[in-house]
Amino acid sequence: MSAEGERHPAADLDETVHQRVRLGILAILSEAHKASFTYLREALVVSDGNLSAHVTVLAKAGLVTVDKGFVDNRPRTWLRATKEGRATFHVEMASLGKLVARYQNVATTS
Amino acid sequence: MSAEGERHPAADLDETVHQRVRLGILAILSEAHKASFTYLREALVVSDGNLSAHVTVLAKAGLVTVDKGFVDNRPRTWLRATKEGRATFHVEMASLGKLVARYQNVATTS
Repeated sequence: MSAEGERHPAADLDETVHQRVRLGILAILSEAHKASFTYLREALVVSDGNLSAHVTVLAKAGLVTVDKGFVDNRPRTWLRATKEGRATFHVEMASLGKLVARYQNVATTS
Repeated sequence: MSAEGERHPAADLDETVHQRVRLGILAILSEAHKASFTYLREALVVSDGNLSAHVTVLAKAGLVTVDKGFVDNRPRTWLRATKEGRATFHVEMASLGKLVARYQNVATTS
């Protein structure tokens, strides 16, 4: 790393969590004990396939768990954040908070 | 949109700007008049190919301009944010600021 090329805070963002849909999933699950697949799909305005793909990434990373059950005899999929998922979301929010603070003046004056 | 599935703020993030490397590029260019490809590559800790791909996305969206020139007879590529690029970064920072504010308590107490 040269003196010119000082590492930028954006280099420390974790794409697993930073990606828009995945960030939204973890944000919702950080407030709720659990959320249904249907709720997440509507809240984040994504297709079934898109949401499924992102849930898979988060589940493989150990950040969410997926449970299938029934409500009124109809299948429903529930998602929960794991302890690690909540911790990772916490770190991402802290990183974004630093970025926002750094660029607040730039953003509001340019 | 059902009453259950209220739209989440993460649904309004623009992936063109939100993506980690592209966010970093626009962040740096919002502070600097211009930056070299080499500087961005080192600051954001990405490969040539990765950075090129993201610069292309931003250029096609009209958010950055790319100029090729020479310094000491060696080729150098300079990037600048367009007016629209700065405005789009401004909007993204405002959206992230709202998200961070909303989850600040969750993030620090869970």
